[in-house]
Amino acid sequence: MTTETRPGTGPLLVVSAHAGDFVWRAAGAIALATERGDPARVVCLSFGERGESARAWREGRDLGEIKALRRAEAEAAAAELGAEIEFLDAGDYPLIETPELVDRLVRVYREVEPAVVLTHPPADPYNGDHPAACRMALQARVLAQAIGYDAPGEPLGAPPVFFFEPHQPEQCDFKPDTLLDITPVFGRKRRAMECLPAQQHMWEYYTDLARRRGVQLKRNAGPNLGLPNATMAEAYVRLYPQTTGVLA
Amino acid sequence: MTTETRPGTGPLLVVSAHAGDFVWRAAGAIALATERGDPARVVCLSFGERGESARAWREGRDLGEIKALRRAEAEAAAAELGAEIEFLDAGDYPLIETPELVDRLVRVYREVEPAVVLTHPPADPYNGDHPAACRMALQARVLAQAIGYDAPGEPLGAPPVFFFEPHQPEQCDFKPDTLLDITPVFGRKRRAMECLPAQQHMWEYYTDLARRRGVQLKRNAGPNLGLPNATMAEAYVRLYPQTTGVLA
Amino acid sequence: MTTETRPGTGPLLVVSAHAGDFVWRAAGAIALATERGDPARVVCLSFGERGESARAWREGRDLGEIKALRRAEAEAAAAELGAEIEFLDAGDYPLIETPELVDRLVRVYREVEPAVVLTHPPADPYNGDHPAACRMALQARVLAQAIGYDAPGEPLGAPPVFFFEPHQPEQCDFKPDTLLDITPVFGRKRRAMECLPAQQHMWEYYTDLARRRGVQLKRNAGPNLGLPNATMAEAYVRLYPQTTGVLA
Amino acid sequence: MTTETRPGTGPLLVVSAHAGDFVWRAAGAIALATERGDPARVVCLSFGERGESARAWREGRDLGEIKALRRAEAEAAAAELGAEIEFLDAGDYPLIETPELVDRLVRVYREVEPAVVLTHPPADPYNGDHPAACRMALQARVLAQAIGYDAPGEPLGAPPVFFFEPHQPEQCDFKPDTLLDITPVFGRKRRAMECLPAQQHMWEYYTDLARRRGVQLKRNAGPNLGLPNATMAEAYVRLYPQTTGVLA
Amino acid sequence: MTTETRPGTGPLLVVSAHAGDFVWRAAGAIALATERGDPARVVCLSFGERGESARAWREGRDLGEIKALRRAEAEAAAAELGAEIEFLDAGDYPLIETPELVDRLVRVYREVEPAVVLTHPPADPYNGDHPAACRMALQARVLAQAIGYDAPGEPLGAPPVFFFEPHQPEQCDFKPDTLLDITPVFGRKRRAMECLPAQQHMWEYYTDLARRRGVQLKRNAGPNLGLPNATMAEAYVRLYPQTTGVLA
Amino acid sequence: MTTETRPGTGPLLVVSAHAGDFVWRAAGAIALATERGDPARVVCLSFGERGESARAWREGRDLGEIKALRRAEAEAAAAELGAEIEFLDAGDYPLIETPELVDRLVRVYREVEPAVVLTHPPADPYNGDHPAACRMALQARVLAQAIGYDAPGEPLGAPPVFFFEPHQPEQCDFKPDTLLDITPVFGRKRRAMECLPAQQHMWEYYTDLARRRGVQLKRNAGPNLGLPNATMAEAYVRLYPQTTGVLA
Repeated sequence: MTTETRPGTGPLLVVSAHAGDFVWRAAGAIALATERGDPARVVCLSFGERGESARAWREGRDLGEIKALRRAEAEAAAAELGAEIEFLDAGDYPLIETPELVDRLVRVYREVEPAVVLTHPPADPYNGDHPAACRMALQARVLAQAIGYDAPGEPLGAPPVFFFEPHQPEQCDFKPDTLLDITPVFGRKRRAMECLPAQQHMWEYYTDLARRRGVQLKRNAGPNLGLPNATMAEAYVRLYPQTTGVLA
Repeated sequence: MTTETRPGTGPLLVVSAHAGDFVWRAAGAIALATERGDPARVVCLSFGERGESARAWREGRDLGEIKALRRAEAEAAAAELGAEIEFLDAGDYPLIETPELVDRLVRVYREVEPAVVLTHPPADPYNGDHPAACRMALQARVLAQAIGYDAPGEPLGAPPVFFFEPHQPEQCDFKPDTLLDITPVFGRKRRAMECLPAQQHMWEYYTDLARRRGVQLKRNAGPNLGLPNATMAEAYVRLYPQTTGVLA
Repeated sequence: MTTETRPGTGPLLVVSAHAGDFVWRAAGAIALATERGDPARVVCLSFGERGESARAWREGRDLGEIKALRRAEAEAAAAELGAEIEFLDAGDYPLIETPELVDRLVRVYREVEPAVVLTHPPADPYNGDHPAACRMALQARVLAQAIGYDAPGEPLGAPPVFFFEPHQPEQCDFKPDTLLDITPVFGRKRRAMECLPAQQHMWEYYTDLARRRGVQLKRNAGPNLGLPNATMAEAYVRLYPQTTGVLA
Repeated sequence: MTTETRPGTGPLLVVSAHAGDFVWRAAGAIALATERGDPARVVCLSFGERGESARAWREGRDLGEIKALRRAEAEAAAAELGAEIEFLDAGDYPLIETPELVDRLVRVYREVEPAVVLTHPPADPYNGDHPAACRMALQARVLAQAIGYDAPGEPLGAPPVFFFEPHQPEQCDFKPDTLLDITPVFGRKRRAMECLPAQQHMWEYYTDLARRRGVQLKRNAGPNLGLPNATMAEAYVRLYPQTTGVLA
Repeated sequence: MTTETRPGTGPLLVVSAHAGDFVWRAAGAIALATERGDPARVVCLSFGERGESARAWREGRDLGEIKALRRAEAEAAAAELGAEIEFLDAGDYPLIETPELVDRLVRVYREVEPAVVLTHPPADPYNGDHPAACRMALQARVLAQAIGYDAPGEPLGAPPVFFFEPHQPEQCDFKPDTLLDITPVFGRKRRAMECLPAQQHMWEYYTDLARRRGVQLKRNAGPNLGLPNATMAEAYVRLYPQTTGVLA
Repeated sequence: MTTETRPGTGPLLVVSAHAGDFVWRAAGAIALATERGDPARVVCLSFGERGESARAWREGRDLGEIKALRRAEAEAAAAELGAEIEFLDAGDYPLIETPELVDRLVRVYREVEPAVVLTHPPADPYNGDHPAACRMALQARVLAQAIGYDAPGEPLGAPPVFFFEPHQPEQCDFKPDTLLDITPVFGRKRRAMECLPAQQHMWEYYTDLARRRGVQLKRNAGPNLGLPNATMAEAYVRLYPQTTGVLA
């Protein structure tokens, strides 16, 4: 069976507010994509230089140093996952929505022609940049579909969008409807997390979370399926209805 | 590629309050299953003899005649779809929830060992039998999973549950999250509908609905997918998270 | 313009868990109906003898006395409003749902042939009898529509259902979508309330509420409408979509 | 009975993101208004020149031609419905919210003094322009009510707002609470749709929808009402509570 | 017991769209804070000069006069409550969100270091300024927590946020989860209200509301608690989970 | 400060569907209560003998043995937590709601006179017994408040109710609004868990969960509070509004 005939394959696009988000929340999905031969592109709207670099600020680094540091870490993590990465350097805390930034995302969509899109969920009372990134990612996807939108490339199809898991899922009204089995690539996710040494406390936290989501995956897949004990998973929420030829 | 290796295949179980529900709402899913070689079992909790047989009552038939009539129609429709059908004759309008009826459903689950379950959604302000059927179908599925539940057969796995579309979807808080392409089997769905002559006005209504859901399927699948113009679809809502190895 | 041609006129049916509910929550709607010449029927499933008669219990009355007391009060209030009243004496605290009680309500529907139905909303974390009454009132309405349901009378049409206001509206997820101007009949509502001397503290409470809902009515109707300063209102929630020939 | 005394009559204002929206979604309400003698004003914030003119772009038209084309079509449809039409030419895909555009809408409100307002619902994951139009229409309505807002004319009253039906209602959390009988004017709606030849596939689609909403209207109005078999309807959602003197 | 050891004490910050909001909605909470020795700061983003000063406009005052009037009234009310007050004069109707205004609020947070924050709830279909104030208050709170945000002072902790009650609570999806007993300070709330003579009709309205919320407080606290008959209360909704060492 | 004057102290009542639920979900709250000197009573409606004893069934035990086993484990866990425990032996899978069982709970309420009540949340698509237990616990609490309800003891006050955390919180619409710091008693919770040897895989799972909820507690309490790194917490949802004299 060739990859072309497998459902859902094709380029993966990840739109992330800050440099580290794609690692904690979607590294498994990225590694699964690249392992099966699909290209993956991560777009970081900012480096998370102000809002998610507390340790570096406490160590007295300046803004330029911090951006360079976060870029280097994120590039290493993306390399571990086999993904391309791009930084729009739009600033964080706050990440401000502008038509220009949306237009840059439209151009990314037209260039990447993603088969699947991952981004933040639309609500997060702990971090205003995440919903802002979500709104821009969704708005750009719709604009990229219009033949009349003035940007290079062909009009986009209708790639499904999945929201990845926020740090406090219930408070963000994040009710997982898709549990992705990342067991085969969890080692790569762990190594990608270890590319972010300033947030070492997160390594265990997100390993635990993968295990917890794995337990739920097994519970929802049925105990008879013979899944390994140490199933690891990531949780997602689908924005649009799934289109399919088979209920399963 | 053999059917064994295709995701989602295995026995299909449909739990329906009245004799006709499975036709209007799920005939496409049933025909897809049987065409790919999976067994399908329809369980009708009642014949719909009181609540969904207005024409027969107006024609002066008695209760026994009406039950026989509805049974014959439903058997013909099931045959057209290649499905087995079973009637529990529990009465309708109202369909009353009892532990005994739930127990009968547990035994059906243990016998059929479904890979997928279809039933009514849990809310319907126009028909109390539909939510009652849903609650019993869900309760029985959970009970059948327990090794300690005293009924023949092995404990059930965790088959996914899909709610099929009610007559007034928005009023039933039915927000489709799965659009099933039934184009290849729509002819069989139409012929199954035509096995129910007393509700002829529904034939066009549900053909229109399939076309409308097909337009939505195309819109959500992307205009570039080369789907046929006359795509036909059925809408479903998934109760539990999807478990998967690929986002698509 | 005769009353026959006015929209919404015809018999009014109020299904109430306890003897007093119809007064606090719907006396305005009842008085408006009877003033315009429509018959109104109140059905009290219980007298509220256990759960809503604290003062009488503290005074040492026995169950029979309390039922007689509550009946007399409710009859007086209904008379003040020009409504017929009927007591099913099904017991309260708890009011237990049974097929027999639902069947009695079906017979009421077939007899009254209501053009409009009022009852409790479906959620109330302070009082389980209220949602039980609601569920039975709704279930009976659907059953009464079926020609195959074995009860005297003609199959019911599809009268709109309005939920009246519970004591703690927000906690019951009661979001008013209909504000009824009861200014012309507020005096009768007040006098009906005064027929319930054991709950004197409620007289002011529900007068205040009517004033508050009146302020909201004026706010939503527009300041230019010339409504009187002391507009009084009752709040309702509609269960089914409004059907109309004019948007207003 | 003169029109002045009928409830809900008075000027109708429709705020539409693109040139065609008012036709598919609200032509029935517009035609009902003008047939009973009420003025109707349609405000198109854009021509839909980029996002809803795919065929013209594929035929190689330029932006100016497409705007002219869409304007001409919309003017013809408005004429068929007896409505005035105005184009603010604010651009689409994206339609960008600005204080200036909101201010222009305030001035429209002050001039038209609408008795009823129709616009898009606040959520639409398929089209960001629709919610943007909604937010501006609602914001302008509130501003126009303030005597302190600096614009010509008198402070606005509190006209009710109805959201018209989006293309994928369930995905937009659109739960109809008002079904408008447009049977008497459906011919005019059909002719207005036929003024938009580039979207010929929509003619049948929205005729089917009107029929489907008509079936629901009959179901909710009661089978005994003697409505014609071919009842046609449009679905709406009311934003503010209905204020009324009669429950119906 | 000293105030230092009492939970929840520390500076109180109130972010209000217009000059009067803090009085009607939160004067009780403010007076409780200052009576127990905590500082309270009220920030009014605007004077409510256009949208909430109808009487002054009708009397022919100009914009400067109205601002001065509203400022004087609000200062008097704040003095009555023992609170500091600050006016950002950002304009109302509409209150426009800008990064600059958010930045000013960040500086207020860093300066006040609030232990508790009060602001408007996020939805209000009657007044767009209220949600705008809410969004800015929340966004600024998050930004003020980041060490990398460039503003004087220390990074903020995570003070709880409570939404105060809007004028039409149900329409704003305001479901109170916290009822604050303001009986001991109600006299001060009343006097603060009386500092706003142009809105005299609100004095009784909000006195009634306090009584109504007091009745609910007693109902939820239990009838056995011996609360005074005339308990007065304010209703709030908590945004973030309560953190506690005891369930009560 | 004596314990009598601390808010929220007084008897704790836990209503649990099966024998083990109170350990995984509420052992921290129980141990906190008993450590501060409050009595705690656990009521197990069943032993979980059919639905939550898979290992014992696989080992070939019979029903009587399994009940005895579960009872012994639960008694040991309760002893570790300092709580009284009572078994109603009402059967599980399914736990069937009956008026008699509710009446037994009313008598427990009247006897215990709880100051706080803990039980299951009202939705759980994985286990129908949990919502059944919840509904009965809530219904009995309301009945116990009525002076007219015929059971020994005084009418109950209005103790707050907290729902404890289900196994798959998001799927049960469980959005924590209260995070309880159980750090001081976590050792006792761990030891209570270890009293249930058949579910050893849950020990780590619920230790991880306590750590995760502890991280969230710290995040919501503010980083400046000096909470220990290894804060452990349990999550709860409050059913009724909190009544309080201070916002915190």
